[in-house]
Amino acid sequence: MHKPPMSPDLLLSLADRIGVFVFAISGGVLAVRKQMDFLGVIVLAFLPAIGGGTLRDIILDEPVFWLNDTVTLLLAVAGGLAAFFFYRFVSRFRALRWPDAVGMSLFAVSGAAKAMALGHGFLVVLIMGAMTASAGGLIRDVVANEEPLVLKDGELYATCALAGSLVYFGAASLGLGETIAFAAGMTTAFMLRAGAILFGLSLPRAKG
Amino acid sequence: MHKPPMSPDLLLSLADRIGVFVFAISGGVLAVRKQMDFLGVIVLAFLPAIGGGTLRDIILDEPVFWLNDTVTLLLAVAGGLAAFFFYRFVSRFRALRWPDAVGMSLFAVSGAAKAMALGHGFLVVLIMGAMTASAGGLIRDVVANEEPLVLKDGELYATCALAGSLVYFGAASLGLGETIAFAAGMTTAFMLRAGAILFGLSLPRAKG
Amino acid sequence: MHKPPMSPDLLLSLADRIGVFVFAISGGVLAVRKQMDFLGVIVLAFLPAIGGGTLRDIILDEPVFWLNDTVTLLLAVAGGLAAFFFYRFVSRFRALRWPDAVGMSLFAVSGAAKAMALGHGFLVVLIMGAMTASAGGLIRDVVANEEPLVLKDGELYATCALAGSLVYFGAASLGLGETIAFAAGMTTAFMLRAGAILFGLSLPRAKG
Repeated sequence: MHKPPMSPDLLLSLADRIGVFVFAISGGVLAVRKQMDFLGVIVLAFLPAIGGGTLRDIILDEPVFWLNDTVTLLLAVAGGLAAFFFYRFVSRFRALRWPDAVGMSLFAVSGAAKAMALGHGFLVVLIMGAMTASAGGLIRDVVANEEPLVLKDGELYATCALAGSLVYFGAASLGLGETIAFAAGMTTAFMLRAGAILFGLSLPRAKG
Repeated sequence: MHKPPMSPDLLLSLADRIGVFVFAISGGVLAVRKQMDFLGVIVLAFLPAIGGGTLRDIILDEPVFWLNDTVTLLLAVAGGLAAFFFYRFVSRFRALRWPDAVGMSLFAVSGAAKAMALGHGFLVVLIMGAMTASAGGLIRDVVANEEPLVLKDGELYATCALAGSLVYFGAASLGLGETIAFAAGMTTAFMLRAGAILFGLSLPRAKG
Repeated sequence: MHKPPMSPDLLLSLADRIGVFVFAISGGVLAVRKQMDFLGVIVLAFLPAIGGGTLRDIILDEPVFWLNDTVTLLLAVAGGLAAFFFYRFVSRFRALRWPDAVGMSLFAVSGAAKAMALGHGFLVVLIMGAMTASAGGLIRDVVANEEPLVLKDGELYATCALAGSLVYFGAASLGLGETIAFAAGMTTAFMLRAGAILFGLSLPRAKG
């Protein structure tokens, strides 16, 4: 096992790209369901795929991550094409929810890591993790005129992203190394989301 | 009354923070009404609280105001918590509309002041005042799938923000001093909004 | 015909301004139809008029184009006023669709040109062209709670913008000169949109 460790930058860029592809599928699937045309499917694939990271980079005043990253853009297109041509396969409940959970976990930790690398404090790191993971899906649902899944009762979506960012922040603050902090944060976010999917975990609601 | 005068920077930062708290409540209340879960309430509290100012700062290419301002973020969270735990109290008609009018007046003038301090002209100052005060509430309503209150007939909402920005611009251009310009702009925006609430003042509509 | 040729900068700025006016009318007309008040009409005029270009400039980290361009802002206001006072005239089917097609073509090419002038690659140039032309209309529809026209089956809207950007990119890459590349891109986008309007051209949909 004497592989050289992955650099934080490589981890970050890999996480962003895998997340981009699986999120793009979720947007494309929604567009097909909404009877949009071919280009509408591609556009709706882009929104969750790069929306959260774009918002993060704009707010942090960083260069938007996909401007010099052709691979990311091609992966977003590929996710849209996959939804368009293999709708029946990718729109199945399981095929959609699990890669989405992986993408959410990856985006949460990469967003938190980017904010932390820029020297931002605890709250901003949490917000950036949750935003990178959730804002794209929120924009997707708002544009498609759907109730935003992310904020819905019983979904635990942004909560998982927040928990993953929190664990990443804690591990990185303790000096455990980037790779371990990444793995710990991702695992936390993913397990919590898996619990929400499998066992229906949910947050309390206020008495309206 | 020999207190030292408040500096413009202090006034600006104070205005932003009070506005953040009262706007956060409005978002949290809407989220509770929409049956969102705990984190959904917090997220929807953030949208009106920091949405308008965030958009203003991004367009003006300024550092986003809450990135280095933990107090602001905590106030947004506090507004969400207040809505979650004290929904029955804060969701009452009067308890909601009046602090909202105060927040709107504060945001309008602080947005106008920021644009003016950067040397922008008349129209940009007005737009930034109106945007800081109204865009967050617009985003809140769009995300929650509500008809945007800000643009609705008979609400006079953005109009009050515009009037407050106009008076601030006039007073500051005449060299009346930052504190007086602030007070004049805020009072104008608030009185006009109070008139709209109490007497049903409204703008004309086109004959469709 | 010995006029001096127009400089690329002048072409760009002219294209942006004409587009701003005709797009503003489309937003204002929608606002009147939605029974918004006077200022709501002006706000909804701004969204399509400057929304796409604003998003483009923010993502490209360029100064937002209207901050130092009072004429653009006045044209957006003028478009809103035109919709408010001459609703019956400007809301007619033909009066609305054709200037909208011109605006779309102009915005597509000016967006592509701006990205290309900054040295961005093929995909980013296409995205910026399509975004400048389509994102403002998308924001307009989302804010007004309408189904987004841009993504709708049978409209070919973003597709035309994409095709215009593609032709512009090709012509400019071949060194044909800015004016010719502009004309070629605009003509392509406009002819395709005219075909979509007149003959009902459309993109395929997936089998949902």
